[in-house]
Amino acid sequence: MRQHRFNKSIPFSQAEYDRRLALTRAAMDKAGIEVLFVTDPSNMAWLTGYDGWSFYVHQGVLVFHEADPIWWGRNQDTNGALRTVWMGDDRVFGYVDTYVQNPAKHPMQDLAGHLAAMGHDKARIGTEQDNYYYSAKAHLSLMAALPGATLIDATALVNWQRGIKSGEEIAFIRKAARISEKIVDGLLERVEPGVPKNAVVAEIQRDAILGVDGDWGDYAAIVPLLPSGSDAAAPHLTWDGRPFAKGEATFFEISGCYRRYHAPFSRTIFLGDPPATLVKAEAALVEGLEAGLKAARAGNRACDIANALAAPLERAGIERGARCGYPIGLSYPPDWGERTISLRAEDQTVLQPGMTFHFMPGLWMTDWGMEITESILITENGDAECFCDRPRKMFVKT
Amino acid sequence: MRQHRFNKSIPFSQAEYDRRLALTRAAMDKAGIEVLFVTDPSNMAWLTGYDGWSFYVHQGVLVFHEADPIWWGRNQDTNGALRTVWMGDDRVFGYVDTYVQNPAKHPMQDLAGHLAAMGHDKARIGTEQDNYYYSAKAHLSLMAALPGATLIDATALVNWQRGIKSGEEIAFIRKAARISEKIVDGLLERVEPGVPKNAVVAEIQRDAILGVDGDWGDYAAIVPLLPSGSDAAAPHLTWDGRPFAKGEATFFEISGCYRRYHAPFSRTIFLGDPPATLVKAEAALVEGLEAGLKAARAGNRACDIANALAAPLERAGIERGARCGYPIGLSYPPDWGERTISLRAEDQTVLQPGMTFHFMPGLWMTDWGMEITESILITENGDAECFCDRPRKMFVKT
Repeated sequence: MRQHRFNKSIPFSQAEYDRRLALTRAAMDKAGIEVLFVTDPSNMAWLTGYDGWSFYVHQGVLVFHEADPIWWGRNQDTNGALRTVWMGDDRVFGYVDTYVQNPAKHPMQDLAGHLAAMGHDKARIGTEQDNYYYSAKAHLSLMAALPGATLIDATALVNWQRGIKSGEEIAFIRKAARISEKIVDGLLERVEPGVPKNAVVAEIQRDAILGVDGDWGDYAAIVPLLPSGSDAAAPHLTWDGRPFAKGEATFFEISGCYRRYHAPFSRTIFLGDPPATLVKAEAALVEGLEAGLKAARAGNRACDIANALAAPLERAGIERGARCGYPIGLSYPPDWGERTISLRAEDQTVLQPGMTFHFMPGLWMTDWGMEITESILITENGDAECFCDRPRKMFVKT
Repeated sequence: MRQHRFNKSIPFSQAEYDRRLALTRAAMDKAGIEVLFVTDPSNMAWLTGYDGWSFYVHQGVLVFHEADPIWWGRNQDTNGALRTVWMGDDRVFGYVDTYVQNPAKHPMQDLAGHLAAMGHDKARIGTEQDNYYYSAKAHLSLMAALPGATLIDATALVNWQRGIKSGEEIAFIRKAARISEKIVDGLLERVEPGVPKNAVVAEIQRDAILGVDGDWGDYAAIVPLLPSGSDAAAPHLTWDGRPFAKGEATFFEISGCYRRYHAPFSRTIFLGDPPATLVKAEAALVEGLEAGLKAARAGNRACDIANALAAPLERAGIERGARCGYPIGLSYPPDWGERTISLRAEDQTVLQPGMTFHFMPGLWMTDWGMEITESILITENGDAECFCDRPRKMFVKT
């Protein structure tokens, strides 16, 4: 029934995509949404398999209650959609190139034309108003072009459906975790005083993409983060060409990526003899992580993990001002988090088996920093399972 | 006067940032904008030096007519701002972490509070309504929190100021070009039948980050694109683990990156004996490129390049449906283009010395593709200068 001109290498079974679509349709129904316009590239891929670096222009997936989804984007990118989505070729729509970055007109006018032609000009249409890459102008243009429609905020509606991973997805995260381990093993070997940072990052990226055991590595949704010394106070600095130095701690936040699935992982390496402040912080952090892993049980809440972590840290006089984790899975830049649950005192979400998180209690103080983190799976019974298996500590190279 | 607690490695002179600020203020004045809120990470960095992978949360730079800009973002990222922006430490503002990905409140409410406290609650405020990462919800939240203000669309206002590069910027693009050349040299050496694609990408990324002659490589704003055979019809596919095959053309679209400046470059490699269709397309494409380079002179218009390219292609029966280039320079993901000028028949922008483009006439047909491109500089007199110096052809390995 579904016609495909090209061979495809779709990562999941049709049953898996059917499951995802059913979940999304149920959530649409609950929110009173007749048509959902999905612009978040991670959501687009999760629903349809679409894979390509085209999210710098306006594009999206339309989800209907009765018909298969429609991929919609720039004409030249229909060639990528025809090769990656599970829907039939007749469900791939393109707009002409003069819509691209042209202040005189907007791609959403083309989308509105399709919606009107399908009889949805007065529909209740969900849009992802705070997801990537749905701009203010996209929203205003769509409203202007469909004055009879009601645009409903569907921010994170699909993201919430992604929370509990299927077996097929967990298998991918496990492959990503093998790559994360390989990256960290390489770091421990290569980081030495005098070695330039970018030389180490070059090997991280090489390891990440070579993959492990024939499982090829994909690009992670965030580049490696590895600030040193005082700069490690800043969680999101990347790298430069300066050498690693004795007497400095560097944290490495990295993720292997297998077919867009991530297993983020951080470890800290100290070159030389670490000062008492860092040794004390390490002990409190590891104690907090272990308490958090015990709290990360099905039936407990997101805040239980955060509170379990906080206790030993506070006893050591360390006050963190930030959440300590977020869900992970399929992602495109700029973020490998799912942007639903936050592991923090205010979040009462109940943990369920199959949920996956980056348990990420980074310490970013005024002039030092430390990261020791774990990507975890909430299990049926018992403590959370860690996807990666490497010593939970600050590594010291003297 | 400007107090800095931390040592900084700011890429440009203060005179260069002053130049940028003066241009931006003049454009604000012309548009009747009292305060400009800049969210595009490339614009943020161009104006202030800010560098960090934090654009997955709401953040921005406020530009005023009289006072220094303010960097505003998540509390934990103020540590990165304090280490990368040229403004004094008192011009770095943070919001508390519970604003992050929390449907109950929005970071723009915090921003609105600052604007009101500074007396700008009734101001004419410019926002980048179609730039990354200014979401629909950010816009609606800011409007709701500042009901007396007038929000003016300032999409691409800063991007347009970036068009003509300074000597300092051109020097960075030249360094990026050396890295682009190194990547392409590596490709020509490594691509062979049977070699898995990801193995070659691993070396591309390694070369890109190792850099050239002590100039360390930064991450490019787009990952390598390298579809083969029929897939090369799709411009934005990335890679997988399948081997390169005899009888297939692969195009490689890559860019070296030096301190966020890019020199995108594409070449096509054919393994085996290329079919007549490709050989004919190559000849027409190279002829079109050369005609375009001659048309890319100061005083000519953007459309002149597009039209010069189109003539030989049309004679060969090749109709492209897309623009053939865009300005390049400083960029963050998801795009290395500047999103102002488009090299296409409809764009009448006059070319000026110091403008830089990726002249990018990709051929993406139904079931084949080819890319041979150049990053170029518009000079005072004469044809455009190519940043990279590698043979302008389809490489054939038999």
